[in-house]
Amino acid sequence: MAGTLELLTEALPAAAGSARLLSGADAADDYRGDESLTVAHTVPAAVLVPVDTAEVSTLLEVCDAHGIPVTGRGAGTGLSGAVVPTPETVVVSFEEMNSILEIDTDNHVAVVQPGIRLNELDQELQRHGLVYPVYPGEYSASLGGNINTNAGGMRAVKYGVTRHHVLGLEVVLAGGRVIRTGGKFVKSSSGYDLTQLVVGSEGTLGLVTEITLRLQPRLPHQATVLAPFASLEEVTSAVPRILDSGVSPLILEYIDLMTMAATKAHVGLELGVPEEVEASALAYLVVMLESTHEDRLEADTEALAMQLAELGAMDAYVLPPGAAAELITAREQAFWVSKANNADDVVDIVVPRASVPRFMERIGAIASEYEAFIAGCGHAGDGNVHLGVFTGGDEARCDRILAEMFDAAAGMGGAISAEHGIGLAKRDHFLHLEDPAKVELMRGIKDAFDPRGIMNPGTIF
Amino acid sequence: MAGTLELLTEALPAAAGSARLLSGADAADDYRGDESLTVAHTVPAAVLVPVDTAEVSTLLEVCDAHGIPVTGRGAGTGLSGAVVPTPETVVVSFEEMNSILEIDTDNHVAVVQPGIRLNELDQELQRHGLVYPVYPGEYSASLGGNINTNAGGMRAVKYGVTRHHVLGLEVVLAGGRVIRTGGKFVKSSSGYDLTQLVVGSEGTLGLVTEITLRLQPRLPHQATVLAPFASLEEVTSAVPRILDSGVSPLILEYIDLMTMAATKAHVGLELGVPEEVEASALAYLVVMLESTHEDRLEADTEALAMQLAELGAMDAYVLPPGAAAELITAREQAFWVSKANNADDVVDIVVPRASVPRFMERIGAIASEYEAFIAGCGHAGDGNVHLGVFTGGDEARCDRILAEMFDAAAGMGGAISAEHGIGLAKRDHFLHLEDPAKVELMRGIKDAFDPRGIMNPGTIF
Repeated sequence: MAGTLELLTEALPAAAGSARLLSGADAADDYRGDESLTVAHTVPAAVLVPVDTAEVSTLLEVCDAHGIPVTGRGAGTGLSGAVVPTPETVVVSFEEMNSILEIDTDNHVAVVQPGIRLNELDQELQRHGLVYPVYPGEYSASLGGNINTNAGGMRAVKYGVTRHHVLGLEVVLAGGRVIRTGGKFVKSSSGYDLTQLVVGSEGTLGLVTEITLRLQPRLPHQATVLAPFASLEEVTSAVPRILDSGVSPLILEYIDLMTMAATKAHVGLELGVPEEVEASALAYLVVMLESTHEDRLEADTEALAMQLAELGAMDAYVLPPGAAAELITAREQAFWVSKANNADDVVDIVVPRASVPRFMERIGAIASEYEAFIAGCGHAGDGNVHLGVFTGGDEARCDRILAEMFDAAAGMGGAISAEHGIGLAKRDHFLHLEDPAKVELMRGIKDAFDPRGIMNPGTIF
Repeated sequence: MAGTLELLTEALPAAAGSARLLSGADAADDYRGDESLTVAHTVPAAVLVPVDTAEVSTLLEVCDAHGIPVTGRGAGTGLSGAVVPTPETVVVSFEEMNSILEIDTDNHVAVVQPGIRLNELDQELQRHGLVYPVYPGEYSASLGGNINTNAGGMRAVKYGVTRHHVLGLEVVLAGGRVIRTGGKFVKSSSGYDLTQLVVGSEGTLGLVTEITLRLQPRLPHQATVLAPFASLEEVTSAVPRILDSGVSPLILEYIDLMTMAATKAHVGLELGVPEEVEASALAYLVVMLESTHEDRLEADTEALAMQLAELGAMDAYVLPPGAAAELITAREQAFWVSKANNADDVVDIVVPRASVPRFMERIGAIASEYEAFIAGCGHAGDGNVHLGVFTGGDEARCDRILAEMFDAAAGMGGAISAEHGIGLAKRDHFLHLEDPAKVELMRGIKDAFDPRGIMNPGTIF
C-alpha cells in the first residue's frame, strides 16, 4: 500500500530509519511467511520490530485509522500459514521483545515477552528448578506464537496444552488500546475469560505483548520405555490402561513403522531393538515417565514394562538416556523428515484417542483410493495424529485428500487442528466443516475486538 | 409478564399442565434465588423444568422472539445471586436433565447433563476408578452450575478449576440454535475456543445442556497433615517450598484462628492439637497428599512433616482418616458457619498467593477502620481467600467494606471473584473496578451470542 511506510515513519520516529522499520521489499524472506508447506510467502508492505508495548499501541492506532492490516509474528515456526501477510500488511515481529521480565518462585509464575523462545525460557527456568511444561515439537518457537496457536506437543497427556498454563496476558487491540487480562492466579470467575479467548486466536483479536505463565516444579528423574507392538489397535488399547495405573506419563507417543524407519535413517538412530522384533512390529509406543525419586522411577519403569507385556507389547526396552533423548528429538522432527521426503502437506488432526485405529483405517482407505502415500506418528495419549501426505506434488489431489481426512475426523468427533492452528492453510476446510452458527459467533467476537478487521485478516475465517 | 405462561403452554404442550411448567407464584421458593447472602429472592414469571435439549431450544426460540428473559439454574447452591430471576423471567431448572450419558473409560471422559450433582457423579466414577477432580465446597452443586461459575475449590492447587476439565459443551443459544463445542480431546486449535468462553459466563451466553468432562485416575491413598504456625506469613512462605518438592499436594488450605475455633465449635471437631500449641497458633495449614502407593504416601507424609518443621511449623499432626475427613468437611462448610454467625456477606477474592499476608494485613486495617469483624480461611495454594464480613447487619457499611476489599485485591493484581462468580451480588463492584475496555469487549461478545439480551440479563454486567 502506497504510503504505509511513510505513515509508520511519521508515527514511530524512534524506529524510522533503523533496521526496526523496513519496507517489505527490504525485509528478509523470514518475515514473509512461516514453515507451512502450502502457503506461499508474500512480501508485506512493511515490517516493524517494536521494542515496547507503546510502539505496538501506536502502530495499531495508526493502522486502525487507515485500515492497514497487521500480522504479528514470533519465530515463524508455525505450520498453518497464520503469519503470512498480504501485500498491504504491516508485519510486527516480536524478536526484540524477547525478555523474561520476572521469574516469581513464590507464585510459581513467569512473566515474559512474546518474542522469548521456548528453549531460552527453559534454560532460565532450569536454574530455578521450575519448568514451563508445554513441549511442542519446535523448541525454537516463541511463546507469543505458542499462545496464538495454542501449541500442544508431547507432554499434553500429563500437563495439557498452552492454554492450561497461561494465567494472564497484555494485549494491544486494534485502535491501540492496551488491556491486561488474568494475573498471577489460577482461579478467577470475574467476567468472561478474555485470556482463554485470545489463546489460540492466531493474531486475529489483538497483539499479545506480555504473558504470565504458570510454572511447575521440575522433576529430576526421567526414564523412557520403547515398546514394539504388532498392531496400532494394541497400542491404542494399551494407552488408557497405562493411564489408569496412575503413573501419569509425561509422554505417550506412537510411531508407525514407516516413520520409525525414516526417522532412524534420517538421524542414524540405533535403539537396540532386535531384528526379529523389528521385522514383525507394526507400531511403537514410546512412554516417558518422570518422578521426584529415582527409586520410584525405577519401580514405575519396571511396573510399566510388565504392564506393557500384559497389554500385548512384543517387548519393552528401557532406553539409555542418550538414545531416549535422540528418539524424542527425532520424533519431534518428524515434520522435517516428511518435508525432506517431499510431503505435500503435514496435518495435525485430533480424534478421541480410542478412535485412532478406526481413523487410521479410514486414512489407509483414503490413501489407496487416491493413490497417495500417507504416513505419520502421533500423540497416542491424546488422539492427536500427525500425517504426512505424499502425492508427488499434485496439489488438487492433496487438497481432496485433506478434505476427506478432515471430514473423517469430524465424523468421529474430532477436530481439524489439534495444535498447529487453522491459519490460511486450513481455512477453507475449516469453514466447510464447521457449524455456520459457530462461525457466526466467532465472527461476532472478532467484530467486538476488531471492528475494522485489520488484525491478521483472512486467518481462520 | 402477562402471557408468558400462556406462550410457553402453547409452545411446550408436553410440559403444559404438569409440574414441569409452573407460573412463578406456584413455584417453590427454591426457584427464586440461590444461597447468596445479599441478593433477595424474586418470584419469576414462570418456571420450566425441561427434559431434553429440544424443549430448551423451543423455549429459547419463543423467549427470544418475545424478548422474555431466561435464567438457567442448577442446584441453586451459588453464592453470587447469578440465578436470581426478575419478575419477567422464565427460570429453567435442569433438575430433570440430570443423567450421566456416558462414562468412557478409554478416552477418560464423562458426558453428563447439567443437572447431575457432583456427589452423584463422584459416586458413579468411583466404580470405574476415575475421578472428576474439581472439588468445590458444596458437593451437592450441579455440574451445570459449576460450568457457569467456573467453580474452583480446594483441589485447584493440583488439578486446576472447572474450566481445565471441560472438554466440550452442548449449548442452546438465544433464538433456539444448538451448538456443540469441543469434544473428547484435550487439544484443539480450530477457531476461537467457545467452550472456554461459555465456562464462567454465568448463563449470559446460552444454556448448557450437555457437558464433556475430562476424568483422572482416582489415586487410592490419601493422608492429611495439620500444621499450626505462629503467623500467616509463615504459612504463606511455606506453601511454595512444599510445592517445589514436587509432592503435588491435593489440598493446601489455611485456616485462621477464629475460623478454626468456630468450625470446631460448630461441628464439635477434636483434632488432638495440645492446648499449649493451640494457645500460641495463629494460623493452620492443612495439607492433603494422595498417592498411587501406600508406602510412597507414608514416605511423602514423613518428608512433609519434616519440611513443615523446617519451615517454622510449631508441629505437624498426621490426622487419622476420620478426623481428616471431618476437618475438610468442616472447612468446606465455613460458609455455613459464617452464615450461622450472621455474616453480612462472604467473599471469595483471589490475589497472587504470595501476597496473601499483605492482603490480610490490609483486611485487618479495613476491619478496624470500619469497626467490623472480618474472618476467614482460604486456599493457600492459590491465593483464594474466603472472608466473612460481620457488621451486625449494616448493609451500607458492609458494601463500603467490600469495595475497599475488592480495591485492595485489584491493587495487588488479584480479582474480585475466584470461584463464586460475579452474579448480581458483585456486579456493581465488578463494573466499578474493571477496565472499561474489557467490559466493552465482554458486552460485544454478549451481543454476538445474545443480540436481544434475554440470557440472564443483569448478571455480570
